[in-house]
Amino acid sequence: MFTPDPKTKSELVETAHAMADAARAAILPHFRARGLAADNKEASGYDPVTEADRAAERAMRAVLAERRPQDAILGEEYGAQPGESGLTWVLDPIDGTRGFISGTPTWGVLIAVGDAAGPAFGVIDQPFIGERFTGGFGLAHVEGPTGRHALGTRRGRALSEATVFTTFPEVGSARERAGFEAVAGKARLTRYGMDCYAYALLAAGQVDLVIEAGLNAYDIQAPIAVIEAAGGIVTDWSGGPAHAGGRALAAASPEIHAEALAILSGFSEG
Amino acid sequence: MFTPDPKTKSELVETAHAMADAARAAILPHFRARGLAADNKEASGYDPVTEADRAAERAMRAVLAERRPQDAILGEEYGAQPGESGLTWVLDPIDGTRGFISGTPTWGVLIAVGDAAGPAFGVIDQPFIGERFTGGFGLAHVEGPTGRHALGTRRGRALSEATVFTTFPEVGSARERAGFEAVAGKARLTRYGMDCYAYALLAAGQVDLVIEAGLNAYDIQAPIAVIEAAGGIVTDWSGGPAHAGGRALAAASPEIHAEALAILSGFSEG
Repeated sequence: MFTPDPKTKSELVETAHAMADAARAAILPHFRARGLAADNKEASGYDPVTEADRAAERAMRAVLAERRPQDAILGEEYGAQPGESGLTWVLDPIDGTRGFISGTPTWGVLIAVGDAAGPAFGVIDQPFIGERFTGGFGLAHVEGPTGRHALGTRRGRALSEATVFTTFPEVGSARERAGFEAVAGKARLTRYGMDCYAYALLAAGQVDLVIEAGLNAYDIQAPIAVIEAAGGIVTDWSGGPAHAGGRALAAASPEIHAEALAILSGFSEG
Repeated sequence: MFTPDPKTKSELVETAHAMADAARAAILPHFRARGLAADNKEASGYDPVTEADRAAERAMRAVLAERRPQDAILGEEYGAQPGESGLTWVLDPIDGTRGFISGTPTWGVLIAVGDAAGPAFGVIDQPFIGERFTGGFGLAHVEGPTGRHALGTRRGRALSEATVFTTFPEVGSARERAGFEAVAGKARLTRYGMDCYAYALLAAGQVDLVIEAGLNAYDIQAPIAVIEAAGGIVTDWSGGPAHAGGRALAAASPEIHAEALAILSGFSEG
């Protein structure tokens, strides 16, 4: 794990907040606007990309160009840009575009910074609510409508008492869906539709497991940083690193992670 | 439809806002509190009732006792109280308790007032975001983080272009689920997990259809008032009134209502 000196740490944290502020300003004029165009990025399926996504990523890249030109960037909309510091910023300007174009308040701006070993610091920002979850470099807190609160995952809940989230009931492939359902079938409560906000709720001690598949690196790196800073664990479905994307198992405690992993590992191939 | 004189109308609108304010104050100290107890109201299944639900309904009933003691009340937590004005207040202190105990920002306080013909005025309030959707007596607006905006449903979208919401993929009985899936299978985008917030998004012109089953009167009366004031339509799955609960089809336009109803009416029995 990348551990910068205090001056660099402050600079990275301030840069991340400046990026999140810039993304908020770029996105909010488009949120719930009538006639928002949703282009179709995929030939098959439905992957809307709005001008808000692109404007927000450009705004974040402009902050980096000014403050951290030496760092690399990987962003959903504008791809990879090399750097020379060994650090990479991993950006999803709007995680949950389908929720965004439906007007829900559960999409988010995802910002992570780290090295090849994974993210060291991350931000999950919800601009409409005005809520920002921050984790890494010794920080783990949320600032929002009810003030500033420490983040910390929930302990001592067995899978049989757990609340489990995923975004779509389909989850991914038929096998991935079966894996999710094998875990959810043993939990107390299953909920859908929260996009990255579900990871934030896990860091805030409100839910116990978030299970997804088909992720990209920019979908999961900021959640990893925030959840690990709050005391949780994020791996793939085999217990390995999740920061390159694919299948993710985010858990509030080592015990519930082990319970879920024992089930999901049977679905981690193919 | 109940049409009061201007003085009574103002009094009812002010009373509803005072109730929503009182509910916010009662609920927010409990939202995301650690150790929030969720009692199990049902012998089978999982229907959590928290102290927040009960405190909010008591707070709303206290407002009514002071301002409108002549009106009847039907509330989720404390049942029916008779009145002598011919008007009934229909209250759900927290619609979406499962979302509430998971920390999501998509539950809401539902307040409606009307007579035997149905709700004439309603409020959908989301206390954490600080967002209030109001409809009826010539009013149709939302006040929230980005100010005050008129509500109006979306026109001119066919089912093939529509966004459809329901809260749980199970929807209700196996037959009700099949009915929902028959409609959703023809739509462009299906989303889950928003509780009453989905109805508010329909009134705000963000989504096209919300389809649910197994509702109580207090789940649907405020959404009916807000959606109808915004130009939408809410019926049951046979095209009849929905204000007594059961199955609901909420639609942005007469055209898309007719498209969905033609499918759902085949699933409206049994």
